[in-house]
Amino acid sequence: MTYEDDSLMLHTDLYQVNMAETYWRDGMADKKAVFELYFRKLPFDNGYAIFAGLERVLDFIRNFGFTDSDITYLKEIGGYSDDFLEYLRTMKFTGTIRSMKEGEVVFANEPLIQVEAPLAEAQLIETPLLNTVNYQTLIATKAARIKYVVGDKTVMEFGTRRAHEMDAALWGTRSAYIGGFSATSNVRAGKLFGIPIAGTHAHSMVQAYRDEYLAFKKYASTHKDCTFLVDTYDTLRSGVPNAIRVAKEFGDKINFQGIRLDSGDMAYLSKEARKMLDDAGYPDAKIIASNDLDEYTILNLQAQGAKIDSYGIGTKLITAYDQAALGGVYKLVAIEEAGEFQNTIKISANPEKVTTPGLKRVYRIINRENKHSEGDYITLAHENPQAEERLKMFHPIHTYISKFVTNFDAVNLHEDVVVDGEITYQSPSLSAIQNYAKENLNLLWDEYKRTMKPEEYPVDLSEECWENKMNLIRDIKESVKKSVIK
Amino acid sequence: MTYEDDSLMLHTDLYQVNMAETYWRDGMADKKAVFELYFRKLPFDNGYAIFAGLERVLDFIRNFGFTDSDITYLKEIGGYSDDFLEYLRTMKFTGTIRSMKEGEVVFANEPLIQVEAPLAEAQLIETPLLNTVNYQTLIATKAARIKYVVGDKTVMEFGTRRAHEMDAALWGTRSAYIGGFSATSNVRAGKLFGIPIAGTHAHSMVQAYRDEYLAFKKYASTHKDCTFLVDTYDTLRSGVPNAIRVAKEFGDKINFQGIRLDSGDMAYLSKEARKMLDDAGYPDAKIIASNDLDEYTILNLQAQGAKIDSYGIGTKLITAYDQAALGGVYKLVAIEEAGEFQNTIKISANPEKVTTPGLKRVYRIINRENKHSEGDYITLAHENPQAEERLKMFHPIHTYISKFVTNFDAVNLHEDVVVDGEITYQSPSLSAIQNYAKENLNLLWDEYKRTMKPEEYPVDLSEECWENKMNLIRDIKESVKKSVIK
Repeated sequence: MTYEDDSLMLHTDLYQVNMAETYWRDGMADKKAVFELYFRKLPFDNGYAIFAGLERVLDFIRNFGFTDSDITYLKEIGGYSDDFLEYLRTMKFTGTIRSMKEGEVVFANEPLIQVEAPLAEAQLIETPLLNTVNYQTLIATKAARIKYVVGDKTVMEFGTRRAHEMDAALWGTRSAYIGGFSATSNVRAGKLFGIPIAGTHAHSMVQAYRDEYLAFKKYASTHKDCTFLVDTYDTLRSGVPNAIRVAKEFGDKINFQGIRLDSGDMAYLSKEARKMLDDAGYPDAKIIASNDLDEYTILNLQAQGAKIDSYGIGTKLITAYDQAALGGVYKLVAIEEAGEFQNTIKISANPEKVTTPGLKRVYRIINRENKHSEGDYITLAHENPQAEERLKMFHPIHTYISKFVTNFDAVNLHEDVVVDGEITYQSPSLSAIQNYAKENLNLLWDEYKRTMKPEEYPVDLSEECWENKMNLIRDIKESVKKSVIK
Repeated sequence: MTYEDDSLMLHTDLYQVNMAETYWRDGMADKKAVFELYFRKLPFDNGYAIFAGLERVLDFIRNFGFTDSDITYLKEIGGYSDDFLEYLRTMKFTGTIRSMKEGEVVFANEPLIQVEAPLAEAQLIETPLLNTVNYQTLIATKAARIKYVVGDKTVMEFGTRRAHEMDAALWGTRSAYIGGFSATSNVRAGKLFGIPIAGTHAHSMVQAYRDEYLAFKKYASTHKDCTFLVDTYDTLRSGVPNAIRVAKEFGDKINFQGIRLDSGDMAYLSKEARKMLDDAGYPDAKIIASNDLDEYTILNLQAQGAKIDSYGIGTKLITAYDQAALGGVYKLVAIEEAGEFQNTIKISANPEKVTTPGLKRVYRIINRENKHSEGDYITLAHENPQAEERLKMFHPIHTYISKFVTNFDAVNLHEDVVVDGEITYQSPSLSAIQNYAKENLNLLWDEYKRTMKPEEYPVDLSEECWENKMNLIRDIKESVKKSVIK
C-alpha cells in the first residue's frame, strides 16, 4: 500500500508512539509533564549560539493531528489496538510552550524551549522539535560566526546544491539570514520568507556561447545589473579584461556591479583584479568571492589583504561542514503527581548527560552600568532573581568560581508561544529577527565572540536549582543501591 | 505579500532564472544542450559511492512547471519582462535524461545523470538535481561503509533528531536503507517508503515512572515485543537486572528481545550485560548499542570483542558527520550548433575542476572469468567498447598506468529515465534497490571496499575521449592567448 505524504505527525521516532500507548493504557497519558529542549555543548567551539527554528516548530504545532492515512498506516503495520488508534485519531495538542525568541543569543544547558503538556502529547512532538531546532540553530550560529569575521562586508548564502536535501536549503538560508547574512541565491526562500535574492550567471553561460566576451555581452544585453563570473577560462588574462571591455562598451546601459571569482588564489587574484578594475575606471565595481569559503579562510584572506568586497558562502555554511550537528536533546524534568510537579532526573555514566531537574527559568543578568551581560542565571520557576540586592553567581561544576552582581536587570528569556494549545506568538518579520540577534550580540563582551578560543560565558544555576539537582542525584543513587541489595 | 509554498520550481539558484532570460531573449533557450552531473572526489576517502536520489529527481521532473504564485513573485521582485514571465509560465520539461540506477556503485568523474534538453530547461533543473543527488548519494555511501564493517549484523537508522531538517531525515533514511540498513526509527519513512520501523522506549519513560522496574513492567504490560533501554540510572546495577527481572516475571507473555545501551563504555558494558543475560537464561536476548556510533567506533568495539548484536546509528550517519557534503557538480559538456553537438569545456586554475567535454557513456568492464569488475571505462557516445577484442584502459592523469583487458562484458550503466519529457522509468521496490546495491558491491574486489585506505578503482577515459579533451584544452588556451594579444 502507498500512502499520501499529507502529515508530519509520523515524522517522529517509533518509540514515541509506543510510549504514548503505554501511557494511554496506563492512564498516564494526560499527566502533565515538563520537557526542556537544550544542547550540552556549543557548536564550532564558539562562544555562543543563535537560536532559530521556532517558526517551523509553531507550524508543526498548528498542524498537530494524525490524518486518516497516518492511522491507516499504523493499523497496517499492526500491534496497535483499535481503541489506542482511535485515541490518536482525535488527539489535539493542548499544552503550553515557552520558548526563546528566534535570534536570541543562547548557551549550552539553557532550556531553549520548554513544553508543559500532557505526557503523551509532549512526547510525540519531541522528534520534530529537535529535528528543526538542532539544524536551524546550528546554521544561524555558523552564519553569525562568518558575519563576525567579515564585519560590515556582505555575505550571501549560495549553498542550495550542497544542502542536505530541500528543507535544509530552504530553512538553512532563513537561519543564515537570522545570523546576519544579507541575501540568498535560493529563489524559493525569497518567495516564502522575503529574503533578498542574488545571482547573475554561471560558467555554463560562458561555455554555452563558447566565447566569454560574447557571453558577457549577451548577458549585458538582457540584464541591467551585471556581475560577471570571470574564471571560466582564465581569470586575469580573459575574464577580467572581457568584463571591463563589456562594461566600457555598454556604458550607462548597464550597472556594472563587479565580478565574481570562483577558483584559484583569491588573495592574489582579487588584488590583481582590483588594480585592473581601478585602472579601467571602475573603482566602485565590487569583487565577490565564492569557492568553499568559511570563517577561517576569510580571516586568512583578509589578513593577506585580499581585495574582496563580498562573499558568497555555500557548502561550509549550509552543511555546517566542520561540525555538522548540534546535539540538542529534550529531557523530562518534572511530572505531575497528585496535582504537584515532581522533579525527574537522568543519571549517566557520561557526566555531561546528567539532566538538571525541575521546571526552570533562564535570566540574562545585564549590568545596568555598562549595559553588558554578566552571564545567564538559571533558576527554578518560582525564584525571582530581580528581587535580590546582590546576586551570587557560581559555576555549576567548578563551584569555587563565583561572583556577586549588583545593580542588574534580570531579563527572563522565555516567552509563552503556545498556551493551552493555542498559538499566542506573533512572529516578528525576518529582518526584525535579524536585528534582534545583532542587538543581542552587542550585549556580549568581545571576548565571548572571538572566532577561536573565546572565553566561556557564565551560565550559572541558582543555589536552589543546584541543590535540588544534587539532592535528586543522591536520592537516585541511594535507591539504586537499595534495589541492588533487595 | 506572502506566498503559498505550492511549487519547487523556484527551489533553484537565481542565476538559473537570469541565464534562462538571456537565452530566451537571444533565441538560445531551445538549443539542445547536454549537462552531466558528477562528483570529483569520493566522500570519506571511500573506495566507491552508492548512487541515490533518482526517485526524488523524477518527482521533481514530474511536477516541473511554474505556478501562478511563482510567476507573481518573480513579477513582484521586478526586473523580468512580462513576455519572459509568460514564457516561463507555459514552460514544460521536454528533455531526455539518462541516469545511473539507484543503488549503483559509482565513482568520481562519472556522469551519474546526463540531461539532454533545451538549454533553458536543462539549466533550471540543475540546482534541485544537485541538492537531491548530492545528499542522498552521500548518505547511501556512508550507510554502505557502516554496513560493510558490521557484516551480517543489523544496523538501524536512528538519526531524525539530528538530521538537517525534515527532508534530510526522510530521504536520508531511505538512502541509508539503499546502502544496507535494515530499519529506521522514523515512522513517516515507514509510511511513505515501506521501510521497516524500529523502536521501543526512551529514558523519559523511566523518568516518568520515576522507577525503572515499574517502567519496564508497564511497557511489558502494553507491548508484546520488549527491548529495554537500561542506562537511565545505572546500566549494570539497575538497568540490566531490572530488564531480567521483568522478563522473568512476564515469561511467555512478552517477547523479551533484549536491551539497548546508550551511554558509557560499550565494550565493557556489552560484555558484562551479555554474561548477565546468559546467566539468567536469555542467550537469545540481543544487545543493541547506540551513542554517536560510526564505522570507526564500531570497528574498534568489534576489535575489543564487544558483545553487540545490532547497532542504532544516528548523527554520524544522517549528517555524514565526518564529511557533510558531496561536491557534485552539473556541467555543460556539449551544445547544439547548426544541428550538431559541439563540445564545451571549463578550464580552471584548479586542475581537478577542468571538465571532460562531450556526450559520454560509462561502461563497467566485467571480467567474464572471475566475474569481477576491471574498472569503468568512459567513452564518447558513439564508441562501442564491446566491439573491441582487447580494450586498452589507462589512467586519465597518470597515463603510463595502463592495462589491456580481454574476454570482458562492457555494461552501459546509463538507462533512459525521461524521454522527450516523459518519465519512462519505473522505479523498482526499495528492497530491490537495496539488493541491487549489494549485488553490485559483490562485483568489486575487496581492496576497493576497505574502510580505510582502499585501492583506487580504475575510472578510465577511452583514447578518443581523452584526446578530445586535450584538444579542446589546447584550443581554448590558444584562443585566450589570441584574445589577449588583440
